[in-house]
Amino acid sequence: MTTQPLRVNSARLNQSLMTLAQLGATAKGGVCRLALTDLDRQARDLVVGWAKAEGCTIRIDQIGNIFMRRAGSDPTRAAVATGSHIDTQPTGGKFDGNYGVLAGIEVIRRLNELNIETVAPIEVCIWTNEEGSRFVPVMMGSGVYAGAFTLDHARAARDRDGISVSAALTAIGYNGATPASVAEGAPRLGAYFEAHIEQGPVLEAAERPLGAVTGALGQRWYDITITGMEAHAGPTPMSLRKDAMQAAAQLVTATRSIALDYQPHGRGTVGSMDVFPNSRNVIPGGVRFTVDFRHADDATLLAMDAALRARAAAVASDFNCNIDIQQVVYFAPTHFDAGLVQSIRDASQALGFEAMDIVSGAGHDAVYAARTCPAAMIFIPCKDGISHNEIEDAREEDLGLGADVLFGAMIARAGAGAS
Amino acid sequence: MTTQPLRVNSARLNQSLMTLAQLGATAKGGVCRLALTDLDRQARDLVVGWAKAEGCTIRIDQIGNIFMRRAGSDPTRAAVATGSHIDTQPTGGKFDGNYGVLAGIEVIRRLNELNIETVAPIEVCIWTNEEGSRFVPVMMGSGVYAGAFTLDHARAARDRDGISVSAALTAIGYNGATPASVAEGAPRLGAYFEAHIEQGPVLEAAERPLGAVTGALGQRWYDITITGMEAHAGPTPMSLRKDAMQAAAQLVTATRSIALDYQPHGRGTVGSMDVFPNSRNVIPGGVRFTVDFRHADDATLLAMDAALRARAAAVASDFNCNIDIQQVVYFAPTHFDAGLVQSIRDASQALGFEAMDIVSGAGHDAVYAARTCPAAMIFIPCKDGISHNEIEDAREEDLGLGADVLFGAMIARAGAGAS
Repeated sequence: MTTQPLRVNSARLNQSLMTLAQLGATAKGGVCRLALTDLDRQARDLVVGWAKAEGCTIRIDQIGNIFMRRAGSDPTRAAVATGSHIDTQPTGGKFDGNYGVLAGIEVIRRLNELNIETVAPIEVCIWTNEEGSRFVPVMMGSGVYAGAFTLDHARAARDRDGISVSAALTAIGYNGATPASVAEGAPRLGAYFEAHIEQGPVLEAAERPLGAVTGALGQRWYDITITGMEAHAGPTPMSLRKDAMQAAAQLVTATRSIALDYQPHGRGTVGSMDVFPNSRNVIPGGVRFTVDFRHADDATLLAMDAALRARAAAVASDFNCNIDIQQVVYFAPTHFDAGLVQSIRDASQALGFEAMDIVSGAGHDAVYAARTCPAAMIFIPCKDGISHNEIEDAREEDLGLGADVLFGAMIARAGAGAS
Repeated sequence: MTTQPLRVNSARLNQSLMTLAQLGATAKGGVCRLALTDLDRQARDLVVGWAKAEGCTIRIDQIGNIFMRRAGSDPTRAAVATGSHIDTQPTGGKFDGNYGVLAGIEVIRRLNELNIETVAPIEVCIWTNEEGSRFVPVMMGSGVYAGAFTLDHARAARDRDGISVSAALTAIGYNGATPASVAEGAPRLGAYFEAHIEQGPVLEAAERPLGAVTGALGQRWYDITITGMEAHAGPTPMSLRKDAMQAAAQLVTATRSIALDYQPHGRGTVGSMDVFPNSRNVIPGGVRFTVDFRHADDATLLAMDAALRARAAAVASDFNCNIDIQQVVYFAPTHFDAGLVQSIRDASQALGFEAMDIVSGAGHDAVYAARTCPAAMIFIPCKDGISHNEIEDAREEDLGLGADVLFGAMIARAGAGAS
């Protein structure tokens, strides 16, 4: 063993990212490569080709997930895996998802270059349709894998043109034969790491190069409908109004204040609002809006739910309106595997810096994978915290450092010596 | 003189209202009779026919306003006039506007029946396109008459199909020849009364049968644009957000509280809001909304303006957003003629009840007429304060009582004895 830690080739990783980004490249420097389109096929073929060139065996399952395996010395060991997705948003960037897959490819390239044989096999996963832009549900491939919903449900999903996932998989040649869910026999991974851009501003604001992701926030999403009485803005005195907009403003404000009551992990967002009749001189008789609550702790998320409902009852009474609250999404908080998180911290330390503990605010394939095996994530900063946008950007040194840590953590988990 | 006050025939007035309401009647019991359509022509022809049957002379001006005159004994006296409009909203009711015109027709019918000769002539006006549903600006006929905008501007206005006011007037045979504006020679009225449903809930809530309208609220309307930064609802901590929706909620709340600071006449309404990108898990980067401020006092309206701008500056700073405020409409408050208002109170008293002083929250043709001559309005209650709706309703006795008061006030102003 050397005291000098092994590192990947960050220039090569960057080159691969730029090559992949040409498939679906947009004029503004982003990528539009929706799931299971012919562009997705080209991207899958490109990455699978790179993996084959490194001697990997390829397995494709019934939801189109791709598992690219580099054999280990002990074929009885479950794979130490990494990966992410290569579909993008319609106006997506070059790094979201793609980085996690190509960091894995770079790990395999570097293992080959250094002639390292791991004890456990190494696998790189490409999960189908993480973004959910063309087909819902989102995180489809990893969701089927973990049993969040059934294979049949996912394959029956249709895009706006009526094309099913099933038909699209066949059309692009990725309608695989092996079981897609662990419950039906898909191989269980020994560990799953996922490197990803943060998609938020925390690392950048803290001037830290890397985050060891300890878990993902739980989520509760709501549709809220306020019904008042529409009336003329002029002739109706303030005291006789049933103003649905004013009631809504109270709950928008409450959404934020409830999240602020549970810092640092509380998040509260009203992202969408529709007003009826939405005419400037008519007091709104109806307002529909959404609330998105997130927190790392499930009991706290429930307390936020209770606080919202209590506030809504008071507002309904104060403003003479009816308020209906429907919860439409619930994800429990995810706690990543302590051992894997520690291995990310250790690999960072070996490289001479401290990883920052961070919690993912968004869902990722790793959140579903964590239901089936030990999992953890590595975050690297992205410029201004911007993602799902063509101007999404990350620095080559940060991308390289994240892959270095991934490399170190995977080797530590898989067990290795120079062959 | 008799101590028993003269009264109109409320059953006949009601009958005329129901007959007129058949032109454009909707399945839900309302009326759809947009300005300068063939239905409007039929309605104009019907009412003009009724006036001619009572011996009136008819004058039509260049914007299609109709003046139906019953001669007085002194041809040098300016007319004592009343009226309103007979165009409706697309889903309008039977009473808005129509009541004021037909109350005037009933006054003439009753004068004829009682053989009363007034000193000044009596006129009933039908103002063109008060509603503004098909053509803008609203209150078009009275606006041209008072010089609020030019005849050419009004005649050039086009509907969604590209048809101009000018062409529509010709098509329905109401493209009159006489000057439309006082400034260009239209006869100045000696006085203008307008009877109207309140279109608000004040009289009903106070259980008062009639309002003597002392003026109309001034109005300031705004378009407000808040620009923050859109970002993922999950990965973006509360402290690093530039949430345009949260900033907007603060100003929606401020709109109400500023109005409440200036009661009883302050009104503040946010009727319309549009959110960008309006996605439930994206922090809004942009919100556009409207503010409608009204008050009876011009200086107070200006104080409300200043309070809104001060609050916006504080919110912009607190929420790291940019806030742009554009005033898009300003109407000064209208103060109706004290003598005419008193004549409405007196006529009410003669009938054995106290009129309630009230201020109009909305614009009416009388507001423009008041720029050219002494003017005042009579309000009667409408069911639940609802108007601009097919379920708009008013009671026959209230409609009759309003016409009784109009009758008394007009006779007092015009001067009369049994002939």
